Amino acid sequence: MTNPSAAMLVIGDEILSGRTRDSNMNHLAKQLTAHGIDLREARMIPDERDVIISTVQTLSAAYDHLFTSGGIGPTHDDITAEAVAAAFDTPIGVRDDARAILQAHYDRSGREMNEARLRMARIPDGAILIDNPVSAAPGFTLQNVHVMAGVPSVFEAMVASIVPTLAGGAPVMSQTLCIQRGEGDIAGPLSNLAEDYPDLSIGSYPFIRDGAYGSNIVVRGTDGARIDAVITALAALFPGSE
Amino acid sequence: MTNPSAAMLVIGDEILSGRTRDSNMNHLAKQLTAHGIDLREARMIPDERDVIISTVQTLSAAYDHLFTSGGIGPTHDDITAEAVAAAFDTPIGVRDDARAILQAHYDRSGREMNEARLRMARIPDGAILIDNPVSAAPGFTLQNVHVMAGVPSVFEAMVASIVPTLAGGAPVMSQTLCIQRGEGDIAGPLSNLAEDYPDLSIGSYPFIRDGAYGSNIVVRGTDGARIDAVITALAALFPGSE
Repeated sequence: MTNPSAAMLVIGDEILSGRTRDSNMNHLAKQLTAHGIDLREARMIPDERDVIISTVQTLSAAYDHLFTSGGIGPTHDDITAEAVAAAFDTPIGVRDDARAILQAHYDRSGREMNEARLRMARIPDGAILIDNPVSAAPGFTLQNVHVMAGVPSVFEAMVASIVPTLAGGAPVMSQTLCIQRGEGDIAGPLSNLAEDYPDLSIGSYPFIRDGAYGSNIVVRGTDGARIDAVITALAALFPGSE
Repeated sequence: MTNPSAAMLVIGDEILSGRTRDSNMNHLAKQLTAHGIDLREARMIPDERDVIISTVQTLSAAYDHLFTSGGIGPTHDDITAEAVAAAFDTPIGVRDDARAILQAHYDRSGREMNEARLRMARIPDGAILIDNPVSAAPGFTLQNVHVMAGVPSVFEAMVASIVPTLAGGAPVMSQTLCIQRGEGDIAGPLSNLAEDYPDLSIGSYPFIRDGAYGSNIVVRGTDGARIDAVITALAALFPGSE
């Protein structure tokens, strides 16, 4: 019984230049973990048509779901929708349902529909729209690819629209123990526990705080009692941890 | 005259579960941009040996440089160094120079060298050490792969050690104009400018603030005068922008 798998694709030159710090991947990761879908890989790529096409083809074939972020606005550098359609050799054009959503939004706010805004109604044939309660312009699901906006508030609203509709697996639970010792002191006992509990994932995430070494030990799995047992064992080995 | 290319590989289950928010990719991106190296792609993958090996092989072959983050500590889940060595079919073992650095560090701080800590002296044959002024345990460069720690303070110190030693290209400059209009109003003129200045990258990064739409227009390139010209033209088209 394996959980469904997923990948994420963050599209945008501004991410790779360092100008913008991506936050969508972390948001999606948390939502998927809670829903029982395993995020197996994330990639960040530029706004380049050929790169988007080949990466969408690779990741959609390798995983149950692919989620994308970025590149579906009205400007010349927004080429994600076209590229995803091309990745599946699917025609794309202005669709009446998407246009109606946009028209109603602009009518309400007293703005005009124009050629640029109409680009956001371009949806591949057969795709299912993803609701955008923030700024109307919809995302879409084509095959197993969920195409969403890059603006975090819009991305998060779209994730809230789509993730609950997907089949999930067993939610992964986790507990964390913060040990105020260097990893070098923790590593031996931790390795033994990892061998004793092969069904759990036991990770050590070190930090340096005020010049002192410590590590957060995170135990993850689907069996809460076994997670408890590992945390209890570690707490006994390293008194004073919390 | 093309700038050197690079990819980044962030290694760690905790990134993909959403528990930890990666900040290393953004830091590296900024440093590389300033140094004239183009970051073309970033990937985030789990702590799994086969995945690390195949991804290192793919990315190191595709780009001039590959930078990795994570998985070089002393615990059982730190498998990056071994996997990178395996990716190049290179033997790996405790190396005297790395052991001496660690031993001196532990002697100074009154801690003991043990089996776990000695793992951090495992360096592939022929690799060049990357200095770690924060916590001593070195990173390394094997072929064109720069293997660094995941803890941000250590990662950043290693980046400061290694990036200035690499051949850079023309630093990419950028200017940003914040326009308080929806992207749909900006898109037309922007597209015309993008056609007139094919040597520049003109990106539109929309936001919603206090319910109002706006966009940061970022113009990037290596010719400062041409960047100025685009920003001046945009400011004239959209008075009040800054």
